[in-house]
This record gives sequence, structure tokens and C-alpha cells, in this order.
Amino acid sequence: MDSPKKIMLQSDYLEGCHPNILKKLYETNLLQTEGYGVDEICAQARELIKKHLKSDKVDIHFLAGTTSTNQIIVEDCLRAFEGVITVESGEINVHETGAVEATGHKVIALTKEYKLNPEVLDKFFTVQENDPLKEHTVRGKMVYITFPTEFGLLYTKKELESIYSVCRQHDAYLFIDGGRLAYALACSDRTGIKLEDLPNMCDIFYIGGTQCGAMLGEAVVIINDELKRFFRFYTKQRGALMAKGRILGIQFCELFKDDLYFEIGKKAVDLAVYAKEALIKKGVKFHVDSYTNQQFMVLSKEKYEEITKKFGLFYCSEDNGQIICRFCTSWATTKEVMDQFIESF
Amino acid sequence: MDSPKKIMLQSDYLEGCHPNILKKLYETNLLQTEGYGVDEICAQARELIKKHLKSDKVDIHFLAGTTSTNQIIVEDCLRAFEGVITVESGEINVHETGAVEATGHKVIALTKEYKLNPEVLDKFFTVQENDPLKEHTVRGKMVYITFPTEFGLLYTKKELESIYSVCRQHDAYLFIDGGRLAYALACSDRTGIKLEDLPNMCDIFYIGGTQCGAMLGEAVVIINDELKRFFRFYTKQRGALMAKGRILGIQFCELFKDDLYFEIGKKAVDLAVYAKEALIKKGVKFHVDSYTNQQFMVLSKEKYEEITKKFGLFYCSEDNGQIICRFCTSWATTKEVMDQFIESF
Amino acid sequence: MDSPKKIMLQSDYLEGCHPNILKKLYETNLLQTEGYGVDEICAQARELIKKHLKSDKVDIHFLAGTTSTNQIIVEDCLRAFEGVITVESGEINVHETGAVEATGHKVIALTKEYKLNPEVLDKFFTVQENDPLKEHTVRGKMVYITFPTEFGLLYTKKELESIYSVCRQHDAYLFIDGGRLAYALACSDRTGIKLEDLPNMCDIFYIGGTQCGAMLGEAVVIINDELKRFFRFYTKQRGALMAKGRILGIQFCELFKDDLYFEIGKKAVDLAVYAKEALIKKGVKFHVDSYTNQQFMVLSKEKYEEITKKFGLFYCSEDNGQIICRFCTSWATTKEVMDQFIESF
Amino acid sequence: MDSPKKIMLQSDYLEGCHPNILKKLYETNLLQTEGYGVDEICAQARELIKKHLKSDKVDIHFLAGTTSTNQIIVEDCLRAFEGVITVESGEINVHETGAVEATGHKVIALTKEYKLNPEVLDKFFTVQENDPLKEHTVRGKMVYITFPTEFGLLYTKKELESIYSVCRQHDAYLFIDGGRLAYALACSDRTGIKLEDLPNMCDIFYIGGTQCGAMLGEAVVIINDELKRFFRFYTKQRGALMAKGRILGIQFCELFKDDLYFEIGKKAVDLAVYAKEALIKKGVKFHVDSYTNQQFMVLSKEKYEEITKKFGLFYCSEDNGQIICRFCTSWATTKEVMDQFIESF
Repeated sequence: MDSPKKIMLQSDYLEGCHPNILKKLYETNLLQTEGYGVDEICAQARELIKKHLKSDKVDIHFLAGTTSTNQIIVEDCLRAFEGVITVESGEINVHETGAVEATGHKVIALTKEYKLNPEVLDKFFTVQENDPLKEHTVRGKMVYITFPTEFGLLYTKKELESIYSVCRQHDAYLFIDGGRLAYALACSDRTGIKLEDLPNMCDIFYIGGTQCGAMLGEAVVIINDELKRFFRFYTKQRGALMAKGRILGIQFCELFKDDLYFEIGKKAVDLAVYAKEALIKKGVKFHVDSYTNQQFMVLSKEKYEEITKKFGLFYCSEDNGQIICRFCTSWATTKEVMDQFIESF
Repeated sequence: MDSPKKIMLQSDYLEGCHPNILKKLYETNLLQTEGYGVDEICAQARELIKKHLKSDKVDIHFLAGTTSTNQIIVEDCLRAFEGVITVESGEINVHETGAVEATGHKVIALTKEYKLNPEVLDKFFTVQENDPLKEHTVRGKMVYITFPTEFGLLYTKKELESIYSVCRQHDAYLFIDGGRLAYALACSDRTGIKLEDLPNMCDIFYIGGTQCGAMLGEAVVIINDELKRFFRFYTKQRGALMAKGRILGIQFCELFKDDLYFEIGKKAVDLAVYAKEALIKKGVKFHVDSYTNQQFMVLSKEKYEEITKKFGLFYCSEDNGQIICRFCTSWATTKEVMDQFIESF
Repeated sequence: MDSPKKIMLQSDYLEGCHPNILKKLYETNLLQTEGYGVDEICAQARELIKKHLKSDKVDIHFLAGTTSTNQIIVEDCLRAFEGVITVESGEINVHETGAVEATGHKVIALTKEYKLNPEVLDKFFTVQENDPLKEHTVRGKMVYITFPTEFGLLYTKKELESIYSVCRQHDAYLFIDGGRLAYALACSDRTGIKLEDLPNMCDIFYIGGTQCGAMLGEAVVIINDELKRFFRFYTKQRGALMAKGRILGIQFCELFKDDLYFEIGKKAVDLAVYAKEALIKKGVKFHVDSYTNQQFMVLSKEKYEEITKKFGLFYCSEDNGQIICRFCTSWATTKEVMDQFIESF
Repeated sequence: MDSPKKIMLQSDYLEGCHPNILKKLYETNLLQTEGYGVDEICAQARELIKKHLKSDKVDIHFLAGTTSTNQIIVEDCLRAFEGVITVESGEINVHETGAVEATGHKVIALTKEYKLNPEVLDKFFTVQENDPLKEHTVRGKMVYITFPTEFGLLYTKKELESIYSVCRQHDAYLFIDGGRLAYALACSDRTGIKLEDLPNMCDIFYIGGTQCGAMLGEAVVIINDELKRFFRFYTKQRGALMAKGRILGIQFCELFKDDLYFEIGKKAVDLAVYAKEALIKKGVKFHVDSYTNQQFMVLSKEKYEEITKKFGLFYCSEDNGQIICRFCTSWATTKEVMDQFIESF
């Protein structure tokens, strides 16, 4: 455990939650509501999100935790012998202790690139469809992408449209893991993608709360009708239907009452990019060119050890004596902290 | 959805959480901590619980939700072909959408009685051990009981000791689901069982938070060393390792800082028994003789419909035109509400 | 292991296979064929069975072993949270080491009776459909019956029609496990059910080979179109798509080339009933009134021990010092052996 | 389906079985034996194999089919969150429809090379052990190799010893899939590995029957005591405990009564290498340098189409207009057929 005096920058889930949410928890605490997410607070949260999505036709479910959410979506979408296609660095492939495989499904890691390329995807499907021994291989039926990606990268509207188009051509679902969606949406000038575009760009996605200022919670948005009917059954069977479901509704009521979700994203992204640019000027190298709240530096071992005496960083990997490590900003990060951090280099 | 004016008594998870917990959430909100339950708040909560248990040798993990907790414990304890023994009315057998079977394990429902009888259990194990075709049947390896039971019943110290003794004789684990443990502990005069006794009476159990005044959270206590090593792996793989694990720590810090957990239990139990006794005097029949916060009435259809116009009750089943239905008390129930409820009969 | 001199009557899979099958194995041994069941021998076997079924619209797949077949059919039919309804004594509930649960599905044991009653079934579905907390319980979506049952009992045409009618009313599949179908078909005078009737009486069933004179093999007949498309994928994923699939085809080519399957059933049934009647005359009690190749006697311990010195019997259970035990006939049983057996009482 | 006149060389499971096995099936057909593999024929087969292994301490189980065998071994060895390490081309990773994932376990594909390199393996384990977030990644606990590999390659004694040594250093099991073991053993001059060496070189392996002249069957050899106790339970639960288990025993009785297994391997390997050398002289290119019964040619599309008019080949993949395709020899292949095949180029 880190000493309390060290400033922690390794992730975006190191503080509690945005104060507005706490306030709402207080205000509603004595209100009696039904359990399991059929209460009026959840209903209100759903309405607020639909308004932002400019769509009435989607189903919205509130879950807690990204790994659990990924599992339930995979189970909702796939038959036993079908698999999920992702990049090698995909969260579900590397950091979830085989949670997807634990549901019985193969994760098909298509490429070492950090973003999924529609052409690579199209080729995969074509080979699959021409395979004379179809029954002997896992059928890739769902494509999984994170937005932003695990390394903070972004898809443009055109890229995402291409991927979705390939999916539809080959009768596969597109699932967008938006665990950190606020930070991607803060870059809509760069990507061309607004929240309201997502219902036209995939079959199912989720709006991450836990890593974007909520105490806990992810809002699953189901667009494709085929995927709607049994979602609550899968949720309950996986132990993810919260008794006090209102707690999740409260998070999203506040995040989407006005534009809080977007403000949280923007603030964190601005601070992260501010730090990145300052550090580049100081000669620090970055592993990738991220414009989101996650930044991946490449430091010498000595530098890494020096910095981590004062600041918590997330260790990713070591390559030829160089260490790839992450710093993150969140709703709670201040400019003062970022300045101190920049200073320390 | 019930109208907001109706007083809801169908369960004990219809309000937010005890105000002390909200206060602690506020106070710690800006504190930076590690994720995934290795933070100092969780550490503190573990220490407080151990103090109450008067045991230093147990492992404690914080999870959210009883179904999820049951699944993870089952996975931690059993090999693929092993099963869980329970009564037919056991929560895992009837109200979790096959969550245990979804982990691949059979739930072996031993009896229609609401409490597990040590002799019935012993006979089951004896038959199993003498079966010449052992490999053709599921091996009952874990016994599951709820305390209090699904119908609010209690085991006495002697009964629990007998069950545990049978388990040990037959090389099986005893797992106590304490989703509503506070209400059983409030009856220790009646049962002879205090919290500190539990580490001597089973292999693994949990202290329910969600249904006992917390916003969410269950504290798993692992006593048997065989079950300790990999619990976090199972938790993560099941999507149940919360990123902001401190939220769970905070619940249990408050519940066990002083005697809050016990006070919550006592208050609810007292009010429930108060209502039960008053209702009996008014001629209301009860399905079982419960001394905990769950009370099961047997009402005519007409009476049921009349009462549920003003009070939310949990419908259990119908038998010969009579309806079995539950009312519950919680940390938030007041004597005024109970008096109104009694009055309405 | 039993001494070689003891005559074994405990089951119907104690010898090799009908000599016609061995002959066919010899004749085709050097023929080259495709693997995995797409060869011309399997194609021929499918045609022969379809001719007997008087139906061209069914899909037929050859598998090896009843437990494996049950698992694959369950996986083909059910979503994760759906379960299989059966009687308590159902093979899948008691003698397959939790094979169905291992696929993640609950086995819902509806009754202690040995045969499923359409009214009990109808009531179950009605309760299920009216359950306000549907997502909290396993959804019974498939009904499983064995024909003949585990205790050798038979359904009449009317009974089976009632069960199937209840299934269709409640949007559930009916699956008939015909592991010992030959022996039920030998009783068509009594039941009114011929092989050609089955495609009108359920959604999926199988024609057992292993226990009806084949070396190994069960022929799955899929009637309901919804269940056809992916059967081979499930089969392969479960490790049940035999490389030398022709071996299975050969079994069914011989069994259905002429009327061998029916002759095997009839011969065994006649001998079993012959022995039953003779034994009843000698005062032996039977647990149920079976007209198939399985007969369940109720013997005193002393008698059981005396008889099992000379004849292998299958021990079922003990009740008040009486032993329920089974004797079986098969394609290989002779009248001489049955006479010796009768004599010994 | 191929026309009957075409000579099929695509695999080694296209004919029935070695005539000695058929003969034994005939001779034992009327013998009565216990079911489920506890009969005297299986016992005898176990003794014969143990004699060849020069080891009395191993457990031997007979299963049918390699995919099923792989699944059961994986389940026997691993906890839910543990995974199997293999090369990308590993059978379990590409050709079993996600059978391993269907048991809940991740297949960790370590390298694009066709053989597993002990150094790569060692590095993987070292990274795993130093991972500060162990619970967030699948724990590689078993190493899977095929011998010979999917592309007919061989490990030398030294290579296998290195791999096993790395496994033991890192507390992982080594599992050798010997689906085509006969053909590797036929190359013991080249590898230095005899059958009797295997119990010293891994924790568990199997001796393939189906692809080495048997009608069906694989003999699992368990060396590590930790893996012995529950193997039959896993087998039954997976639907793989054959009722007429003696059929499997018969296969291995014949294969190991004398040296039939070794003769089958040698004959096929000699013919394959004979053809390879002749084809190389004729200018045919090979994808890898295999010395076993599987040979992988690289043909132009035109050549591939020309040849496959007369001979069945297994299509592997296409790369830049060149086709990689396999021909195999088996116990049934004759020199005449090979000469015809060579001639056709």
C-alpha cells in the first residue's frame, strides 16, 4: 500500500465520487423504492440518458463494475460456441482473469495493434465463412472494442462506421466497452463522435460510471432488439442485479441531469493533455499519442523509481530497460497536482 | 411500481443506508486509496470485524450482493463434480435464477423442511459414501444454510454444532449465508449464538450488509485455511472485485466501529416481533413462528388485497385460497409505521 | 469385479453388440470415408431411420453415450438461465454426476412420482408465468422424460400427447430420452406409440443404441426447426463429434436396415416379462409393474445375498431392510438363462 | 463428399481400424463384463500399457476422442481462474470449437512458432510471478504440447526435458497430447524419446488410438499423484465414461499386446517420409520439415486443384496464391497408393 502522502495518479478510481452524487444519496436516503432496479430513480436516470442519446428505442440497464458488465453482455449476445473478437491488448483479453472464458466463450485476439482495423476484421470473417470445417472452430460473432482503448486511443467516426459496417456484413454484433466513455466524448472535436451517435454505430455499448466520477455503476445501452429480451435474467443469474438498485440510478441521475458526465470527462482530459504537452517539452517520451485521461510514459528505470517516490504510477511493462507506465487524471485531479507532477521531472 | 404514498414493508432493502455510513462516505470522499480492496479503509474494516469475531486467523473479503457472494464461495469451495446441499426453500435453490448451477454445480435439495436436520444430513452422507457407483452421482461436498433462514427461522447453538459436526465427519464444508445475520445475532438469547461463536461453527460464512443497513456489501469470513488462497482470483474472475473497493470497506467500518450492526438488528427484530404479537392478538395467522425481522402472514385473498392497498407486502405463494406474504422491518422502520400497520388489520 | 462364472443381469450393456453390426464393421473396414459424420454410411443410416420415422423433415445426428447426448441437447435448446424439468428419479437428476448442471443449467425436479403428470406440469408453468419476480427464478423451458422411464414404466400415447400439449401451450420444448427406446417400442400394443409417431409428439428425441444392442451410439432426431442449425457446433465443442463417425453410422445402418432394432427390443421385453410373471408366481415382489426389459424386485437382504452369489443384479436402494434391485434382459439374453434365474428363487 | 474412387489422403482416420482389433471384438463379443471401464479387458489393457511404460505407478483411463480427452484433462488439472499455455497453432487453440474455453479456462497462446520454446515459456512465467496485479490475469498453470505437433514436428528429449524443467520450476503441469503419439515414437532414433521415457517427462499425457489404427480410443496416463483421485468423476460428468467401456479396452489390448502400436506408427511414418523425399526430388515444396505421418506441401492453386481431382488432401490455408495442404499416411496406407500419389506430380 502506498503511503498516504504520495500523490496517486495510477488510475481514475482512487477517490470516492463526484460530490453531486453524494448529495443526491443524502437527499434520497429515506425514500422507499422497489428493489432490483425497477424503482423510480432508475426510471428517471434512464429517461435522462435517453434524452442525451436522442433515442427512445434503446433499453438501459444499470450494472456495477466493468468486468461484470462485459461478462453479462457477452452471455446475452453469444451461443456457447461463439467467441468475441478483440485486439490482443483488449481489456477482456488481458486484465479480467479470464472472465469471458469463464462464461465459456473464447476471446479471439486478432492483432497486436492497439486499435482494431476494419480490413483485418473483414479478412477474419471472410476466412471464417469459407472454412469448410466451420464446426471445428469458434465462430466469431461479436466484436469488442474499447472506446477510448486500453491505451487511451480514439476511433474516429469513420473508423467506427467501417468497423460496424464490417460487422453487419458478416452478421456479427459490435459491442463498445465505454468504461471510460466520458474521456472519449470529451474528444468529440477530434473523433466526430458524440454520445447521440453511438446508438447508430453499434449493437450494444455501455457508459462507464466507476471510472468517470461515479461511486460505482455502468449504464448498458442495448440498441439491437435481439439483445433486449433476457438481459435481466442474465444479470440476476450472474449475481449482478443489485438489491438496492437505486444506488446505481442515483449515480446516473446526477451524471446526466445536466452535463456533469461531459464536464468530468473534459476536465480530466484537459489536465492530462496539459501535462503530456509539458512533459514532452521536458523530453519525456510517450508510448502512444493519447488525447484522453490516460497517458503512457516511457521512462528509464531510474527515472521511474525517482518519480514513483512521490507519485503513484501504474506499471505496465518493461522493455529493454525502459518502463512503460501510466498516469491518469480524474474528476478529482487539480491543476496544482498536475503542476507538481510536471515539476518533478 | 408502487405509488410513493404506500408504505413499503415487503423487504429490508427499500431505503438507502444507515446515516452513519453516508457520513463516512462524505468524510473520506477525497482521500486517495488503492483500488480493488487493498486500501487502508478496507484494512481497518477487516480489523474491526476481527475484533468482534475475537479471531485473528480468519480472512475477510468484501463483496457486493448476496447472489454474487454465494456464487464465489461455491466456486472457491468445490470441484466441478461436487454439489451444494441445502433445504428445498434454500435461497440458492429458488431465488437466484440458477446462479449456482451457472457455476456448474448441482444444488442438492435435501428436504422440504425449512431448517436442515443433522440426522437427515448424516443419512445423506452415509448413502453417498456407500454408493458403489460414486462417480455417477454428484458428490455433496458443501452444506449451505441461511441464518436466519429464508422464513426467518433460527438455528440454536446445539443445532448448528450438530450440523457442523456431521459435516466434519463426512469431509464436507459448512457455509453459512448470513445475508441477514444481524437479525439472527439480535436473537442470541434465544439461539445461544454470538458473532464470535461463528468462526468455531463453520468453514466459511458472511456478514450481510445490504439487507442489514448498508448501501451494499457482504463481508465474507473464511475460517478454513484450504479456502483462503485463491479467493481474490475467483472474485475478480466473477467480476466482483470492485474498483472502488473502499466503498465496501466504509460500510463495514461504520457497522462494526461500535455496535451499529447489532443495534440495527435488534431494533428491526424488536419491531417485527412487536407487530407479530399484536397481529396474533388480532387473529392474524402466521406461516411460521419467526423471531426475526421477516414475518410471514397467512391472509385470505380479500384481506391481502385490502392490506396491500396501503402497505407493500411480499407475495410468497398461494395455497387453497390463502396467501402467504411477508412483511419486513429494517434499520429505517419506525414504531409509528408498525402501529399504523397493526391498526390496518 | 464379478467372477466370470456369475451370470450378469444387472444391465443391458454387459455384452458387445449384435453380430450383424460386427459383420458390417468387417465388411466396411477398408472403405475410405470422410470423418466427423459426413460420410456415406452415416448418410445411409439417416435415410433408413427417416424411412422408419416416415418423415423427411427431421435432422439426424449420431452421438456416443447417453449422458453426452443429454448434455448436448440441453445446450442446444436452452439459454443460460433456463432449466430442464424432470421427475426426481430422472436420469439427468440422479445418475449423471451433475452433467446438466455442468453445462450451467438447473435440473428442476418436479415430483417424486416416476412418471411426469401433465397436470403437475401445467401447474408449474402457470405459477412460473404468474411470478412477478420472473428474473429471480430459473425459467423452465424444456421438459425431459425418459421413455421407457428409469423404472421401466411407459407413457401411453394419450399421456405423451397431453404432456406435449402442455409444453406447447407454455412455450417449452419436449425432449424424450430414448436411451432404451427399443424396449418401449416393443410395447406399442400397450402404449399405442410407434416409432413413426414420435416426430409428432416432441421437439427432439433420441433412439438409443448402446443399451439396445449397438456397440455404442445414439441417434438424435431433431424435429423442431429452431433446434437444428447449430447442433454440430455444440457437438464438436463438447468433444462428441467422433473422428471415425462412420462407426456410429454402421450401428444404425444395421439396426434399421430391416427391423433389427424392433426385434432386439421385442426379444428382450418378452424374456423380461416371462421372468417377471414366473417370479411373481413364486412370490417375488416387484417395486413397480414394468413391461419392459428392466424389472425391479423387492428382496429381503438374505434373498438378495443368496441370489447375487449366482446372478449379477443392480442394487438400487434399501428401504426397511428390503432391497430394491434390478435385473435386465438384452439382445444377448437367452431363455435358458432366464429359466436358470427363475429356478434360483 | 468425395467420390468413392478418389484416394483419400487428407487424414489418418479415414478407414476403420486395424484388423487385429476387429478380430478381438469378435472373440470377446459374448463375454459379459462390468460397464464403465472397470472390466477385466480394460484391466488387462492397463497392465499391457504399464509394462510398455515400465511403470506401475501411473493411473490409466480410456476415453474416446481427442477433444473430449483434452477437456477432461484440463478440468482435472485446473482451478476456474487458471489457464492452459500453448502455441498459437495448438490443436486446442484452433480446431476444437473452443472446447477448452467451454470448460471455463483460457487458452494462452504464447507464440506463432509451431513448437514451444522453453525460454519463451520461462519468460512468461517470470512475468506472471512478478505481476503486482496477479488476481487480474489468468494464471498459466498448465503447459500443453502436442507430440508430434499439429504440423508433424518433433521435440527432442532435451527439448522436452527443458520444457518440463521450466514447468516444475514454476509450479505448472506439463500435459502432452499424444493423439498421434505412435508417429512420434516411430522417430525415437531422431528424438531420443521412447514410450517408457514419457512418465519421466510430464505430469499427464495420452496415447492416441483413434488416429493410430484404433476404431476409437485414447489412453490417458496420469503420472502426477495430485491429478489421479477424481479423474473418473470428471469423465462421467463430461459424458465420457462409456457404458461399454470394454470396447476401449479391446483397442488397447490389441495395440499393446505385442508391438502393434509401434509397427503401425513405423509403417505410416516410413511411407510418409518415402513420399516426401520422392516429391522433393520432383520439386514439390514443403511447409515444414516433418518426419512423421503428416506432410504439409505448398502447392500452387492449379497444382492443388489438379492433384485433388484424384487424391483427397487436407486444405490448411492459403498464402499469396500458394496453398498449404496436408497428406497423411495411416495403418491402411500402402506403398502402391504412395507410388500412385508420387506419380501424379
